[in-house]
Amino acid sequence: MSNVISGMSMSLDGFITAPDDTRENPLGVGGMRLHQWVREMNETDTKVLDDMVQNVGAIIMGRHSYDLCEGDGGWGDGGPAGKVPCFVLTHRPPDPKDVVAPDVFSFVTDGIESAVAQAKATAAGKDVGVHGATAAQQALNAGLLDGIHTMLVPILLGSGKRLFDHVGGPVELRRLWSVESSDIIHLRFEVVK
Amino acid sequence: MSNVISGMSMSLDGFITAPDDTRENPLGVGGMRLHQWVREMNETDTKVLDDMVQNVGAIIMGRHSYDLCEGDGGWGDGGPAGKVPCFVLTHRPPDPKDVVAPDVFSFVTDGIESAVAQAKATAAGKDVGVHGATAAQQALNAGLLDGIHTMLVPILLGSGKRLFDHVGGPVELRRLWSVESSDIIHLRFEVVK
Repeated sequence: MSNVISGMSMSLDGFITAPDDTRENPLGVGGMRLHQWVREMNETDTKVLDDMVQNVGAIIMGRHSYDLCEGDGGWGDGGPAGKVPCFVLTHRPPDPKDVVAPDVFSFVTDGIESAVAQAKATAAGKDVGVHGATAAQQALNAGLLDGIHTMLVPILLGSGKRLFDHVGGPVELRRLWSVESSDIIHLRFEVVK
Repeated sequence: MSNVISGMSMSLDGFITAPDDTRENPLGVGGMRLHQWVREMNETDTKVLDDMVQNVGAIIMGRHSYDLCEGDGGWGDGGPAGKVPCFVLTHRPPDPKDVVAPDVFSFVTDGIESAVAQAKATAAGKDVGVHGATAAQQALNAGLLDGIHTMLVPILLGSGKRLFDHVGGPVELRRLWSVESSDIIHLRFEVVK
């Protein structure tokens, strides 16, 4: 069964980017700290990340994430998980000739429900990963988010973009598992519906 | 050596109260979810909490926390840890005759540095607990916070009061340990100085 899962590195105070995220600094100024663990992965991280990548069949993201990271912004000729198909929520799709990886990116103009439906169809039973804050909050508020995988990074950023800043109301979670790795802790939750 | 440690139950999105915290609902409307684990403690919780209580020799808090919980607000004739002395940051100390537990509460009008100094002197080598958001943020921003103990509760509250909302800038932490208990996870961090 295909689950829709947010998977993001987050500071203890809830930020997934530092301030001033641009194409030069997609995680904001100083925000690379959030991905330091990726450069220092130990066996635990490698296993957790391999499991995630093997289980993901499609990805949903907001337009901001796409604009920051596509092409030479960081993802080269792929998306955040290589050639895994990505569905980008947007009101104004880019000109097709400007899309660096047209085999990876599709643009969804009719909302999160449509994006989730298309992503699930593409994922064919695998999970749908949700990248970034906007897409996660939209999926959560639409009742379409099934799980949250947080790579909790031991830092307080103080400002930037929070993963959960526009959550409509209380959302009960169930802790599935947690595992300490390099200096982070992987936390896996199910969204209780 | 006396360490200054914030110890709070926090939702995954960083809140330590739900909205509308009053004396009737010191944790806000729906916020008791954050302390549900206290009513359902297992052996792990009991051990962790016993260790914390045995190690704490004084507590610092903001005036808002005091106003919400003193006396019949919840703490009866004590403070958040029974008769452990509490230092309340305030610009306007209450009339002494209105203080329900004068053997527990002192009022500090000259800032966080003074509160930490007085609390450390009282703690006599034990830790100083920091209760609430205001006191934790003031201690952190003054470089006086040594550790963070988060009881991470599997819920997204969406609104309320965040533990870390006015942190001056990036603060590096070091994960000391984590342990899963009932449905929460205890996370212990050291503040890197």
